[in-house]
This record gives sequence, structure tokens and C-alpha cells, in this order.
Amino acid sequence: MALAKQPYKGARDFYPSDKRVQKYMFGIWRQVCERFGYEEYDAPILEPLEIYLAKTGEEIVNEQTYVFEDRGKRKVVIRPEMTPTVSRMVAARRQELAYPVRWYSIPNLWRYERPQRGRLREHWQLNVDVFGIDGIEAELEMISLVDAMFVAFGAKHDMYEIRLNSRKLVDEALSSYIGLNKQEAHDVSKLIDRMHKMERGKFVASIDEVLTPKSRKAGAAEKLLTLLDAKDLKSLPPELIENTSVTELKQILNMLSVGGIKNARFDVTLMRGFDYYTDIVFEVFDTHPDNNRSMLGGGRYDGLVGLFGVEPVPTVGFGWGDVTLANFLELHRLVPELKPETDVYVALVGDTASEAQKPIAELRRAGVNVAVNFSGRKLGDQFKAADKQGVENVVIIGETEVKENRFQLKNLRTGKEKTLDIKAIVKSLKGQQ
Amino acid sequence: MALAKQPYKGARDFYPSDKRVQKYMFGIWRQVCERFGYEEYDAPILEPLEIYLAKTGEEIVNEQTYVFEDRGKRKVVIRPEMTPTVSRMVAARRQELAYPVRWYSIPNLWRYERPQRGRLREHWQLNVDVFGIDGIEAELEMISLVDAMFVAFGAKHDMYEIRLNSRKLVDEALSSYIGLNKQEAHDVSKLIDRMHKMERGKFVASIDEVLTPKSRKAGAAEKLLTLLDAKDLKSLPPELIENTSVTELKQILNMLSVGGIKNARFDVTLMRGFDYYTDIVFEVFDTHPDNNRSMLGGGRYDGLVGLFGVEPVPTVGFGWGDVTLANFLELHRLVPELKPETDVYVALVGDTASEAQKPIAELRRAGVNVAVNFSGRKLGDQFKAADKQGVENVVIIGETEVKENRFQLKNLRTGKEKTLDIKAIVKSLKGQQ
Repeated sequence: MALAKQPYKGARDFYPSDKRVQKYMFGIWRQVCERFGYEEYDAPILEPLEIYLAKTGEEIVNEQTYVFEDRGKRKVVIRPEMTPTVSRMVAARRQELAYPVRWYSIPNLWRYERPQRGRLREHWQLNVDVFGIDGIEAELEMISLVDAMFVAFGAKHDMYEIRLNSRKLVDEALSSYIGLNKQEAHDVSKLIDRMHKMERGKFVASIDEVLTPKSRKAGAAEKLLTLLDAKDLKSLPPELIENTSVTELKQILNMLSVGGIKNARFDVTLMRGFDYYTDIVFEVFDTHPDNNRSMLGGGRYDGLVGLFGVEPVPTVGFGWGDVTLANFLELHRLVPELKPETDVYVALVGDTASEAQKPIAELRRAGVNVAVNFSGRKLGDQFKAADKQGVENVVIIGETEVKENRFQLKNLRTGKEKTLDIKAIVKSLKGQQ
Repeated sequence: MALAKQPYKGARDFYPSDKRVQKYMFGIWRQVCERFGYEEYDAPILEPLEIYLAKTGEEIVNEQTYVFEDRGKRKVVIRPEMTPTVSRMVAARRQELAYPVRWYSIPNLWRYERPQRGRLREHWQLNVDVFGIDGIEAELEMISLVDAMFVAFGAKHDMYEIRLNSRKLVDEALSSYIGLNKQEAHDVSKLIDRMHKMERGKFVASIDEVLTPKSRKAGAAEKLLTLLDAKDLKSLPPELIENTSVTELKQILNMLSVGGIKNARFDVTLMRGFDYYTDIVFEVFDTHPDNNRSMLGGGRYDGLVGLFGVEPVPTVGFGWGDVTLANFLELHRLVPELKPETDVYVALVGDTASEAQKPIAELRRAGVNVAVNFSGRKLGDQFKAADKQGVENVVIIGETEVKENRFQLKNLRTGKEKTLDIKAIVKSLKGQQ
């Protein structure tokens, strides 16, 4: 029986035309990261299960990881996210590193889930993290960097919205202001994280279910709903306005606005799925009505490095998946026309494969990317093959051409032909770029 | 208990300085591939077990793969090699593709084995394949491309040797010339593949073990040893000299030599581990006495695409691991000095984080990669941090500087300082590159 030709479910083959788009996206990501002083790192796709158990979140670890036992009976995971890995790497060189450490990576990640729009089992995710900055300069830099990436992709500010919240603020609101105990606060947080995927009635009922009779009697549900209805920092209950986190959020929003980033706002319902966030969190949403969803998110997680037995390091970071970025670029028509890397296609006429090596080597030495058709077929067929691969320029090498050391350069799109020596061909090709 | 800080056994963390070397190696690989008209593709790291069962070789599949059952009870493998994957991808678009198809990829591969010099459990491997060329033009192009890569890495021809053989020739020699049956020929091939890791006496005894009494009586062992002692094509037994494969090998070696590649030779003992090769095979060996081993290998495998239920496609390809390349470059002192991507480090003096944003943004807009130190520490400490990260240039931004819009640019290596406006700083930095 023949073997199956499809890739593994929820994963993708990247043919050269797909890979070109990916390289374009990764190229912009890399460029902007490096513009902000971030340096690329990488790590193995396999990690021991333990590093996810502590803080990644139960659903992901128990239901969505690719976990298995290796031949040495170790429990290993194909990484579902990069944050525990980068924390491990910083911890391993906690003393030697010069802070602030600014690192980025574009790891391949895997989650076992039902493939759907914007979510596959396999994706690549840009991870950007800064280690060693206590103050909101870190959050400001990170959000400015994200914004610079959108701008570099050609996006306008009305195409996306940056939303901020503070885990600390929500925690304090739930405990001190509303008066919930630890278990209630935990359950309510999880419900808030899912509230936009539920009907309002269902949400209210679920809140009621997780509250103790005492909290219910004290009017906790009403207070919570009022809190969650706050559309901006000013609308927060007066008891919370003086909170340090509110001051910080105000400062960040102001400074972003001064820097020209006016599409950022406070969103008290923003929670982020991971358990490791400790303070300010942010997400960026697509404003397009057909794709009104979160594209990327991050925040401050000051405790993770410390889990590896060293002194903790203040950290702010975010992750941005290639699938959500590709959806955004397509929907807003921001994918540029990308040409193949091959500059010219050589069509051989007659038995010239050997003699053609010299001019071909000359073209390559001059920095021209050259593919050769050795099929010996009719010129028309060779042109068709070039066209099918998206290559516009063909150089024809036959016996006369070799003798005279001048070759026909033909542009398949315009139909223009010129007979030139190699130097002139190089010049003509470079002129087209 | 604290979590472990090391990466998974036999796999590597790439800190920015390691990643820089990897990016340099991958960059040369990509550049030369594209110079020869090859385009990059990619595919998922997970594949169904089936695609390796047919042709990858028993040892790899049974003892060295990372194989497990996913949550949907499918047997999946973390790919140990890329050849079955690329064959699957070509098969899936057998009709639509324009031939010759020239593709390359740098996949991450995994094998469960005892880590040792030049072999880890995880590595990256450049894979280059051309599909749709019947004749030796394909082998010639592939070997020329490999050679161009060595040249691009700065290697001299005496640092490596290219060895060629033909599976077809060996098969015919074992069956027609020596008279072995299928099982004997298979067993003898496997022994030849390992002969350089065995003592001569052990090898001769092992050969004797796998021969039938009939073959032994007919003098098969002696004939085989004479065959394997042939140092070049001329020394082959006269019965084989007229063989088509010999003619092809001669042509390839001649044409390589004409093209300036004189470090290639015939090696009748070269077998390659994979079962899918059908004709000419080649490997490149490091000539350094401390590392006299095969660095990369490949050959023709015309049958693999056909396993996916479509008409077969003639194919020639090779794989080159990042670990063996890194060993080669280090041993021959070919790793260039690589600077960090960050061009300049900004040291802030006083409470200038906000005001510094404008000049920093200006630097970035001009294409300068800028990292900012927000620590508020003494200048000396900030210089040390820059130096530790390998960044030579520091721009100092204090209150006076902001007011006058002129900033001190200091080179930490030379100690030179200049006070300049942003435009002049940009010019000065670009002049250093």
C-alpha cells in the first residue's frame, strides 16, 4: 500500500512559496528585535516534563502536551511554549549574564488540540523577553517593540488594539475590595479569562456557583460585575483608583500615547492563560470584524527563573504565533508580492551542458542566483518550467552562444530579448531589482 | 526541589554567542544553495512512523528513533532524517511541480543514541535535493555545490576529500562478478559499510561467516578482498572496467577536475547507511588527522518518491549536519570573529528615560540597533554591562545632552570619545562597519 502524502494532522508542509512568506515574517520579526537590542537564542524542542508542571497551566499540561517516555524512561515533552525554557537558560547562567538581558527566539511549538482557524497543533512563535528590569520601562519597551513590528509589517494603528491589565490589580480587587478568599479568587479569575467566550447569563450563573454563601450575601457578584464593566481606568471603583498598579498603568498608557501609540487601552477583563504572570499583562487584538481576536500576548513574570534554584529575576516578555500573524496579514492585505530567490533560469540548447559551466560559474561569482535546466527539451518547454517556478529571466546557452561568448537574455513577462555578454547580463539583472 | 537547569541530554542550548555561529553557518548554506537555484522548504518535525519503515534502515528505526503514540493513538516519530519527508512532499504535488525541482531545508533532526564527538541526539542538517534529472548532471551539480560551500566557508581543497562510489557497481560486482546470492550480497554490503571501524582480521572472519559453503569454495572472499583493495577505477578487476557505472564515475571525476575540483576520488568501500540509495553515492571526509571522518554524504535515490503511490522521480541529494560542520570549522580555525547584532548601547544618566526616547527612536529609524540600560547605575557599571555583552559603542544620554541634543559616543575598545548629534553618531557607527 502506498504511504500517505499529507503532513501530520494540524501541522503544515511549507513548499517554497509558503516558506517565502514565513521567511518574510521571521525577517521582520528579527529585524525589529535586533533594532531594539535583542539577540537570538535557541534551545532543544524536547524538555523534561517537570518544567511545565509548576506554572504553565493545568489544561495545557494535562490535555494538550505531546508528552512521552524516552528510551531511557525519562518523561519528556515537545515544548508547548518557550517561557519555561528561556527561564531555565537564564537560571543556568544567572551569575555570568550582563543585565538587562534582551533575548528573542522563534521556536517551533506543539500542542495537541483540535485544529481550527488561528490554532494548529504546530506553530512557530516569536518569543521576546527582557530580564533584569524592575520598573515599567520594561513594559514600555516591550509594547513599543510590538508596535514597531506592526508598523514594519505595514499595519495602520486602526487595524489593531493593544489592551493592558494588571494581574496584581485584579488580585487585589478580588481579595481586598470584593473580599473573596483564595479559592474563590482563583476560580473567578479562570472564569474572567473565559468570559468573552460565554454568554453574559451563563457567566453570571457560573460566578454565583463558585462563590461561598458568605460572599454571595455580601454582594460580591454585583461588585465583581461593576468592576468588570469598567471601560477605562477612570471608571474603576474609587477604592481602587489609588492602587499602585493603576498609577503604573496610567503612566504606561500616557507614555505610549506621547510616543504616538494611541491604540492602547486598559481592559480589566484581560487575564492571560498562564499561571506565571505576576503583574502587568497585555494582548494585541485584531480590529477586523472577521478576525476580532487576540493575536499575541505577554506580561511580567518575575517568579519563573527562581524556580530553577537561583535568585529570581524580574522579567517581561511576550509570544506571537506565526499562524495568527499570517491571518492578520492576509485579512488586511499586507502580504507583499514575494519573488523566488532564483534570479535567472538557464535554458540549454543542444549538447552544451559542459561548455555552459563557465558562463554559469561566472554569473554565480557575480552574485546571481542561477538554476539550470538540463532536460534538453524544446526551448518553449524550458520557458514554461521557468515560468511555473516564478522565475522571470531566462539565459539561453547554445553552441553559437558559447563560441561567441554572448548569450540571449529573455524576460518572460515582458517578452524582451537582448544578446549580451555575461557582464552586461549581470548588470541588466541587477538593474531590475 | 529546584528544577534542573541543563538542557535535555544530547541536545544543546544556544546562547546568543552560540546562535551567532549557527546563523553564520546556516547563512552560508542558504546563500550557496540559492546561488545554485535551490529554494527553501520546510515540514513538521513529527511524521507518521510508516514513512521510515520502508527505507531508512533497521538500526535507525528500531533503536534510534523518538517514536511514541499521540493522544489519538497514532504512532508518530520525531524525524531522524528529512529524505522521506521531502519525498512525501514531492509526491503530494507530483503533477503540478516544474522539473527539475531544486529544494533545500535545514531541519532539526533527532536520534536516540549515546552522545559523542560529532554525534548528538539532536542536530540540524542541511538537506539539498534535485528532483527530475536522470543523468550525471545532477551528481555533478550536487558535488560542485558542496565544494562551493566549503570554499565559501574559507576551506582549502587539502582540508577535505570527496569520495565517490556507485551502489549499482557494488551490487553488480557482488552478484555477477563474485557470484553471491541476494542474502549474501546484503550481508556483505552491511559489513563493507562498517569495515573501517573493524580490524582487518575481524572483517575477513565476518565475511567468511556470512558466505555460503558454495561461495566460499568458489573463492568469493578472495575476489571480494581484491575488489575492496582497488584504490582507483583503473585498479578494478578487468571484468568490471567496462561497466556503465565505471564510465559514469570516470566522467564525473573528469568533469570535476576540469572545474578545478581535484580533491575527489573513487572509493569502492563507500556504502552509505541508508537503504534507499540506488546508484552513485558520495561523502566528504575531513583530512585533518584529529578528525578523519565523514562530514556529509548523499547520492542518488530514484525510488523513494514512488513509495507514496505516484510515478517515481529521479533524485539526487545530500545531508550535512551542523555538528560535523562546526567541528570542521573549529579544527581548521575557520570560524570568523562574530560581533553581536547590537550596534550601540545607551547608558542613561539621571532621570532621562523619557527624554531619551526621542534620540533613541531616531537612531533606530536610521537602522542602528540600540540596547538601552535603564538600571540608573554608575556609568562604569553600565560600561561593564555593555562590554560583557560584546557591544563596543556606548552613547551616553544625560540631562545636558538631551538639552543640547548632542551626545557622547564612546568606543569601549579604543577608549575614544566624541560629542556628536544623532546624524553624526549614525555616520560614525556606519563608518566602523
